[in-house]
Amino acid sequence: MNIIYLLDLIGTFTFAVSGALAASNRRFDLFGALFIGFVTAVGGGTTRDVILGLTPVFWIKDISYLIVIVSAVVFTLIFSRKIAALEKPLLFFDAIGIGVFTLIGVEKSTALEILPIFAILMGVLTAVMGGVLRDVFVYEIPLIFRKEIYATACFVGGIVYFSLFYFEMNKSVVYFITMLVIIAMRLLSLKFQISLPKVGVDKQ
Amino acid sequence: MNIIYLLDLIGTFTFAVSGALAASNRRFDLFGALFIGFVTAVGGGTTRDVILGLTPVFWIKDISYLIVIVSAVVFTLIFSRKIAALEKPLLFFDAIGIGVFTLIGVEKSTALEILPIFAILMGVLTAVMGGVLRDVFVYEIPLIFRKEIYATACFVGGIVYFSLFYFEMNKSVVYFITMLVIIAMRLLSLKFQISLPKVGVDKQ
Amino acid sequence: MNIIYLLDLIGTFTFAVSGALAASNRRFDLFGALFIGFVTAVGGGTTRDVILGLTPVFWIKDISYLIVIVSAVVFTLIFSRKIAALEKPLLFFDAIGIGVFTLIGVEKSTALEILPIFAILMGVLTAVMGGVLRDVFVYEIPLIFRKEIYATACFVGGIVYFSLFYFEMNKSVVYFITMLVIIAMRLLSLKFQISLPKVGVDKQ
Repeated sequence: MNIIYLLDLIGTFTFAVSGALAASNRRFDLFGALFIGFVTAVGGGTTRDVILGLTPVFWIKDISYLIVIVSAVVFTLIFSRKIAALEKPLLFFDAIGIGVFTLIGVEKSTALEILPIFAILMGVLTAVMGGVLRDVFVYEIPLIFRKEIYATACFVGGIVYFSLFYFEMNKSVVYFITMLVIIAMRLLSLKFQISLPKVGVDKQ
Repeated sequence: MNIIYLLDLIGTFTFAVSGALAASNRRFDLFGALFIGFVTAVGGGTTRDVILGLTPVFWIKDISYLIVIVSAVVFTLIFSRKIAALEKPLLFFDAIGIGVFTLIGVEKSTALEILPIFAILMGVLTAVMGGVLRDVFVYEIPLIFRKEIYATACFVGGIVYFSLFYFEMNKSVVYFITMLVIIAMRLLSLKFQISLPKVGVDKQ
Repeated sequence: MNIIYLLDLIGTFTFAVSGALAASNRRFDLFGALFIGFVTAVGGGTTRDVILGLTPVFWIKDISYLIVIVSAVVFTLIFSRKIAALEKPLLFFDAIGIGVFTLIGVEKSTALEILPIFAILMGVLTAVMGGVLRDVFVYEIPLIFRKEIYATACFVGGIVYFSLFYFEMNKSVVYFITMLVIIAMRLLSLKFQISLPKVGVDKQ
C-alpha cells in the first residue's frame, strides 16, 4: 500500500494547490486560502466518510494530510506568479490524484459490503466532490459539470476495478490498472478536448 | 408500507426531474445532470440521515433509488423540449413528493426518541433540503426561500401527524391524512399564489 | 459549566440574528429567515459533530438552541429597521460567540483523544462554519475569507487552551483566558482594522 499512500499525498498536494489558486483568484486572505485548499483536498473523502458513517473522518487520524495541505497552500502563495507555467504538470498530477482518490474510495467502500455500483459511486465522489465544493465556495460554476471527461474516467476506473477482481487478478495489478485507466482517460480527454454531450438547448 | 414506498419513488423521480431541468438550464453535461438530479432527489434524506447518525445513508441500502433517479434524468433529457408542457403534472407530483418525504422523515426520526418538534423539523428537512442544495449547486437563490407555501405545508403536516397519533388514530389513517394535508396546502398555495410574508424592506 | 452554557446561548442568539439579517437583505420569506438563522447559529457545531461522528448532533438533544434561534429571528424581523443602531453591540456579542464556540468545539474534541491540532481546528470550525454556510446560502463571498482577524483569533485561542492545560492551570482559568484571548483579538482587529494579508494579485 506504500506507493498508494505516496500517490494519495501527491493528489492531496495537487488538489490543495488548485484550491489555493481559486482562493487567490478571488483575493481571499491567508485563512481563506487554507480553508479552500483544505476543502478541495479532503472534501471528497470527507463527504464519502460522512455518508458511509466512517467517522471521525480519515484526515483526523493521520496528520500527514494536514501537513501536505498547509505546505501546498504556502507553496502556491509563494510561487503564485510563476504557477501559470506549472499548468501542465498540475493537470498531470491532478489526473494522478483522481486516479488514486477513486481507487481509495472504492477500496474503503468494499469493506462495508455494499453493492459494487455504490462502491464505484463512492470512488467517483471521493475524486470529484472536493473540486465541486471548491467551486461552490468561490462561486464558480463547477467546471466538472461542463468540461472534458472527469467523473466519467473515475466511473470507468471503478468498473475496471470490479471487473478485474471478478477475474481474480492479483490485487496490485488491479490497483495499478484501475489508476492507469483513469489517468489515461483523463489525460487523453484533455489532449483531444473530448467532453460529454451538454444537456439542454442554447437560448437565443 | 407498500403504497408509501411507491409514493416515495414517485417523489424521487419528480425531484430528480427538477434537478435535471436545472442542470439543463445551466447547460451542464450528462454527468452534471446526473449529479444535480441525484442531489435534488436524495439530498434531503441524506442530510437527515447524516444529522441523526443513521449511516450508511438510506439510498445505499436500496438500489431502487439509484435506478429511479437515472431513469428520471434520462427521461428529462430525452423529452426536455416537451417538458414545458408537463409543468402542471410536475408540480402535482412534486406536491406528492414533499408529502411522502415529510412523512418518511418524521417517521424515521420518531424511532430515535427525540422530541416531536425535532422529528417534525427532520420531516421538513427531508422534503426541502434537496431543492435547496440543487439551487446552491446551480447558483440560483433557492425559490423555496421566496415563493409560496412549501416548507410551511410540511411543518403543518408534521403537527397533524403527532396530533392524530395523540388521539390514538389508526396508523394508516395518520399516514394518509398527514400526506393529504401537505399536498392540499401546497396545491392550494400554488393555485391562489399564497406566500409567506417577505422579510426586510425593498431598497430604492 | 453554567456560565459557559449562558455564553453559548448568547452566541447562538447573535449568530441567528446575523443569519436573519442576511436573509432580510435578500428579501427571503419567514421560512428563509428561520432557515438561514438556524444554519448560521448551529452550522459550525453541526459540521463538527458530523465530522467527528458525534450524532445525533448537539441541538437535537437540547431544545434551548431552537427556542433561542426562533426568538432571535423574530426579534430581528420586528426590530429590523432599528437594527442598524445595534451594529456595535452585535459585533461585541459576535466576538463573545466565537470565543465560546471555539472553546466548546475544542473541549468536545479533546474527549475523543485526537491530536491537539485537530481539536483546535474543530474549535475554529465550530466558530466560523456557521457564517461561511450563511454566506453560501445567500450567495455572498464569505467576509471571513477577506476581512479582519476572525478565524485566526479562534486558532490562537485554541493554542492558548492547550498551552495553559500543559502548565496544569485550573480548568475555569483556562476556559476564561481562552475566551478572553479570542474576544480581545477579535475586537482589537475590528478597532484597528487589522487583516490577514490578501493572497493573489489585483488584476488590472
